[in-house]
Amino acid sequence: MKKKQLVRKNVRKMSGYVAGEQPGTLRYIKLNTNENPYPPSPKVLEAIKKAGRKELRLYPDPDLTPLIRRASRVYNVPENCILGGNGSDELLAILTRVFAGEGDRVVYPHPTYTLYETLVHIQGAEPVTVPFPDDYTLPEEISSVPGKILFLANPNSPSGTFTPAGTIKKVARKFGGIVVVDEAYVDFAEETALGLVGSCDNVVVLRSFSKSFSLAGIRLGLSFAPAWITDEMRKVKDSYNVNSISLTAGCAALGHMPWMRRNAKKIVRTRERLTASLEKLGFFVFPSAANFVLARIKGVGLNGLYRDLKKKKILVRYFNTERLFDCVRITVGTDEEIDILLKNLERITGKPGS
Amino acid sequence: MKKKQLVRKNVRKMSGYVAGEQPGTLRYIKLNTNENPYPPSPKVLEAIKKAGRKELRLYPDPDLTPLIRRASRVYNVPENCILGGNGSDELLAILTRVFAGEGDRVVYPHPTYTLYETLVHIQGAEPVTVPFPDDYTLPEEISSVPGKILFLANPNSPSGTFTPAGTIKKVARKFGGIVVVDEAYVDFAEETALGLVGSCDNVVVLRSFSKSFSLAGIRLGLSFAPAWITDEMRKVKDSYNVNSISLTAGCAALGHMPWMRRNAKKIVRTRERLTASLEKLGFFVFPSAANFVLARIKGVGLNGLYRDLKKKKILVRYFNTERLFDCVRITVGTDEEIDILLKNLERITGKPGS
Repeated sequence: MKKKQLVRKNVRKMSGYVAGEQPGTLRYIKLNTNENPYPPSPKVLEAIKKAGRKELRLYPDPDLTPLIRRASRVYNVPENCILGGNGSDELLAILTRVFAGEGDRVVYPHPTYTLYETLVHIQGAEPVTVPFPDDYTLPEEISSVPGKILFLANPNSPSGTFTPAGTIKKVARKFGGIVVVDEAYVDFAEETALGLVGSCDNVVVLRSFSKSFSLAGIRLGLSFAPAWITDEMRKVKDSYNVNSISLTAGCAALGHMPWMRRNAKKIVRTRERLTASLEKLGFFVFPSAANFVLARIKGVGLNGLYRDLKKKKILVRYFNTERLFDCVRITVGTDEEIDILLKNLERITGKPGS
Repeated sequence: MKKKQLVRKNVRKMSGYVAGEQPGTLRYIKLNTNENPYPPSPKVLEAIKKAGRKELRLYPDPDLTPLIRRASRVYNVPENCILGGNGSDELLAILTRVFAGEGDRVVYPHPTYTLYETLVHIQGAEPVTVPFPDDYTLPEEISSVPGKILFLANPNSPSGTFTPAGTIKKVARKFGGIVVVDEAYVDFAEETALGLVGSCDNVVVLRSFSKSFSLAGIRLGLSFAPAWITDEMRKVKDSYNVNSISLTAGCAALGHMPWMRRNAKKIVRTRERLTASLEKLGFFVFPSAANFVLARIKGVGLNGLYRDLKKKKILVRYFNTERLFDCVRITVGTDEEIDILLKNLERITGKPGS
């Protein structure tokens, strides 16, 4: 196909981001894409029903006024420093489009959320990775790597490990570009870097409604960034990037924070129990501040374990890479789901777990 | 702010896309952003209510399977040639990200949908415009301009004028890049270029649910393109770019085509009456195949008219540019809305209209 030469070389060469399996109608215990096992607040469902009767024929409010206003109060960040996105994935894309031109360097530790690499390739920019050590503490020398953007998933995926805000602050002070702290999982952790948005002029914090708010289906994320960054992001985002229904749903979710917090607490409790049981089964479990754990049997490929579990209708996430071949990432489900998982793992490993 | 140097020069220099006014709670007769005055199908509203009870906590189907399947049947295009977008605006952005690198040329006639320019600037690419003649027929020499993409809004906005598929075919055969036919308004016209997707290997057709389906609020668009283009677009799009509720709503809308067609017919009838009345009032009205008309009083600035109407709580669209200063773009509303508009215009112009 001669026309294929028209495609930008960087895009032509890349393969797209590979999302976790989303099985259709088959019934699985779905512990592979870090969704929340508990339903969203009933106030969100009410809001969606009402939105369905409202003026869907009109364009949504491009400024997302009620959502931004509420987020400003909840997170104590000025309104002009907040933007909404079609998932925090879109906000990541917007940031690369603002800062990373062709040949620009974008830095992140490895392994981490693989979408960063995809977005950098789409820009024709250059990914520069710094390996995490075996215990996934952030290598502080990352701050002296030259680059336009430093992406830090915190808690990190797939490891679940957490870097304290104090460390991020030190890194941000030294790094020559902007530091994007991707806090998709932070509601399951004990600290946030949100305070840095006001004190460092190069820190962006991203949040998602997909995990702690149980709203992966509506695609909604928020960015918190100094006004000079937010203004540039606003130029690049589609005017109507968040639809009317997600806007309403997001407002309702922020209006019912105790619901989210209660579910997050339950998940943290289940995570601790899951961790202890996995350790009894012989796994090393990285200390997790997220709604998933990374379990490892050092040197032993776990693709077979992933497939055995899939046969039993339990989906976990397996990454077939040099660094992760001996791990599986397990989303924290309900207690019932985790019990079934553990029973199956006992059978597979031949060890008693709980 | 020294950090501002971190922003890509092309982004730093540009101002963002300016969307039409979306007044908040004030009551306006809203004839400025080409929304449909009639509500979406009741089947869509039912679907949204049901979706609100479904698994919002899970990620949407990244392949939009039921929507693509239905679109394939409705539009008679193979499933592997169709993608969904968060509005056709997102599909336009994806196309620029696939094809237009820094310094690449992107061609379009002028004046047209101003988002094209914004998207080209975001890419750091170079916009090359070819002026429409006074009657807005497509200048066929546009096909020999070198460029990676040729954008053709058809019907064109803000003129409402239409280029026959035969002409587009000739242009596409000659043009060296891909031709994107943006058919956001085509359901109000009498012909589509959709047939070219199968016969020309460089033609992409975009559709929107915002206008004819009365669903601007859900943000949904479709692209129809040869598989080699669709595959590259799929790499660049966010995996979960369309949320669960818009997915369901879009399926329901495509399952109730007579509703859309009936509304489109009503709008075309009102458009013809509006055109005749505007002509009686002394306007020149460009022949429109869309759900809006561009009305002109040659050489007379119409900013004052726009403001007079706004005072009367009627919003139309005014573009303060060299080419359009003597025009207003008026969305075709309900017959009642158009009657009120015409009465106000009679008063302002001092002429009898109907």
